[in-house]
Amino acid sequence: MHQVMEWNEDVSEAVKAELAGHGVCLVNILGSPGAGKTSTLVELIARLRERYRIGVIEGDITGQIDADTIHALGLPVVQLDTDGACHIEAMSIQHILPHFHLDELDVLFVENIGNLVCPAEFNIGESFRLAILSIPEGDDKVEKYPLMFSTSDALALNKYDLKEYFGFDDSRVERSARSVNKDITIFHTSSRTGQGLEELSGWVAQRIDAALGRASQ
Amino acid sequence: MHQVMEWNEDVSEAVKAELAGHGVCLVNILGSPGAGKTSTLVELIARLRERYRIGVIEGDITGQIDADTIHALGLPVVQLDTDGACHIEAMSIQHILPHFHLDELDVLFVENIGNLVCPAEFNIGESFRLAILSIPEGDDKVEKYPLMFSTSDALALNKYDLKEYFGFDDSRVERSARSVNKDITIFHTSSRTGQGLEELSGWVAQRIDAALGRASQ
Repeated sequence: MHQVMEWNEDVSEAVKAELAGHGVCLVNILGSPGAGKTSTLVELIARLRERYRIGVIEGDITGQIDADTIHALGLPVVQLDTDGACHIEAMSIQHILPHFHLDELDVLFVENIGNLVCPAEFNIGESFRLAILSIPEGDDKVEKYPLMFSTSDALALNKYDLKEYFGFDDSRVERSARSVNKDITIFHTSSRTGQGLEELSGWVAQRIDAALGRASQ
Repeated sequence: MHQVMEWNEDVSEAVKAELAGHGVCLVNILGSPGAGKTSTLVELIARLRERYRIGVIEGDITGQIDADTIHALGLPVVQLDTDGACHIEAMSIQHILPHFHLDELDVLFVENIGNLVCPAEFNIGESFRLAILSIPEGDDKVEKYPLMFSTSDALALNKYDLKEYFGFDDSRVERSARSVNKDITIFHTSSRTGQGLEELSGWVAQRIDAALGRASQ
């Protein structure tokens, strides 16, 4: 297992270098099944597509429901079917890159497999990670699944419109997230109400600009 | 990997035989992080503890939040800390059994790691499996993560009080679940409203009785 992880790190660095050579930044989006990864990505695309040329890799165990959603937006999207595996590895990304015209892209969003555990262990050539945790999952999840949050650059607390209904304790999540990752940036988002999506998009744009060596607008 | 799985199957059979020798039935409870595995288990325990002597194994990647919850009910509970691993294997159960007085138990509930993917691949000596999918996760989850549902004996659609809020399409989930598992029994449950919990408890009791060779009440 240790060797697999080292090998994955090497491939991740190779993917990152290849993308950098084409001026492309990869963003790894992680979270549980149903946390709202696809809907958040759709909102980010709506706010960022004027400014960046965007491609998407949709990770799924099977099927192509999410890829169809993104395809309907008119963006280049490639389905990465892990055929049962619970995470995406860098090698899978390396194999899929030839399906894109990288010189015609600025950003490649990867929607990882819905899973709070395994995907966190594998770098896939990303410039940064966005973790999405939804309110109905509960305010103890950072304590139970710390690796996802210790390795992510931002955390979106999604479906935030349900905070009162679930008696979700923000302070508990924020305290536990910062205890494993003092630099994490936390957003409160809802695709239903639109809350926090401008702020999240602005942060994502800043990180993309930094990765691409551009001055932020 | 194939060898690991075969070995796990052998150990699973050994665990099941050991438990049967003590008249104990193991129930594997699976689902995403935050689907409501612990709260459903608490409700099952409340309804079944008069009838069965119950023990609990709480699987967690780290920490013991859920084990503390069960311990507070005054039942024998052992924390199974996977130290980062994304699922429970039969060997882990085999190692933990000596912590229980098996002759003083009828049922051992195992709350698996919150994960819709990997735990489904590993039998752990169970007599039957209960999968919990919560409404906020979305009605496409059976299609995206079929193995969990094709290998479970029952599916509880939990947090059912949120069905309208999320526009959750029962018929889609039920159709997709039955397409991968024609014998699956489906319940609509909510720890908040109590809906469906009597029915679910009744079904669990029937399955326990069948496993223990008892006449159902």
